[in-house]
Amino acid sequence: MRMSLSPVGRVSTGMAGYAIEIDEQYRPALAELRGFGHINVLWWCHHLDESVYRNETVTVKPYRHGPEQVGIFATRSPLRPNPIALTTTRLLDVDLPAGVLTVAYLDADDGTPVLDIKPYLPGTDRVRDVTTPLWCSDWPQWLEDSASFDWASVFGNAQ
Amino acid sequence: MRMSLSPVGRVSTGMAGYAIEIDEQYRPALAELRGFGHINVLWWCHHLDESVYRNETVTVKPYRHGPEQVGIFATRSPLRPNPIALTTTRLLDVDLPAGVLTVAYLDADDGTPVLDIKPYLPGTDRVRDVTTPLWCSDWPQWLEDSASFDWASVFGNAQ
Repeated sequence: MRMSLSPVGRVSTGMAGYAIEIDEQYRPALAELRGFGHINVLWWCHHLDESVYRNETVTVKPYRHGPEQVGIFATRSPLRPNPIALTTTRLLDVDLPAGVLTVAYLDADDGTPVLDIKPYLPGTDRVRDVTTPLWCSDWPQWLEDSASFDWASVFGNAQ
Repeated sequence: MRMSLSPVGRVSTGMAGYAIEIDEQYRPALAELRGFGHINVLWWCHHLDESVYRNETVTVKPYRHGPEQVGIFATRSPLRPNPIALTTTRLLDVDLPAGVLTVAYLDADDGTPVLDIKPYLPGTDRVRDVTTPLWCSDWPQWLEDSASFDWASVFGNAQ
């Protein structure tokens, strides 16, 4: 089975904030995206692309106050068998001709390959009754609260 | 840049409901996943793997009452440049030794390759103030409301 990916664009970060630049051939695929307040961005953790950790790491110790060993499927660590990251972010602007999406935030470096853009649909993406383990019960309960949260206190130096 | 994927498991559907069977080498990566009420599942739309539509389709007409042409980045259609699907679902049980996750629902066929499991974190995945275009404003506002929603009325025969 062929399971290969090709980027559809790249992350662009700088003084102007966070943007996603979509390759020319895929720009028509942005039609009607305007109007969605948020998008899901799938991006490739390219720094770990050839990493020996990629396939061998199954547990990590990511959290200062969490369990000693957390399976990577229970974390958002980029150290995963398939290094695909998922970021939900607020969509600020769509420049259709230029293929540029301006977003509120992206936890990806400048130049990161973008794999996919999906509209954030509350009926498929938004959970009313969320449950999390005790060790992360004091983390933010909404995306909007994350920006002002002290994530460093969660990760410490071990991230 | 090498951007290739390998499955970490497979979808299993049947009389017993919906499950994800994780390959043996990745089972330790499920440690501490128990306790999360929901997970994000990334899976490979393998039916479209070799499809000529995969790279050439940029717009679709998926919705009965939506715009005539919707860019695939504004839909959740599996017809996308990188045919990766994202499903958020309720986690019912984790059988760590057997590597089996029992979930409430998956919109994937039996045998579908699973690429990744991520915990659903409200601080990164749950948006308080959601905005959607007018043409999908009557769709469910929460994942919990999707099960009883008449999605067929949205998609019609054009899905």
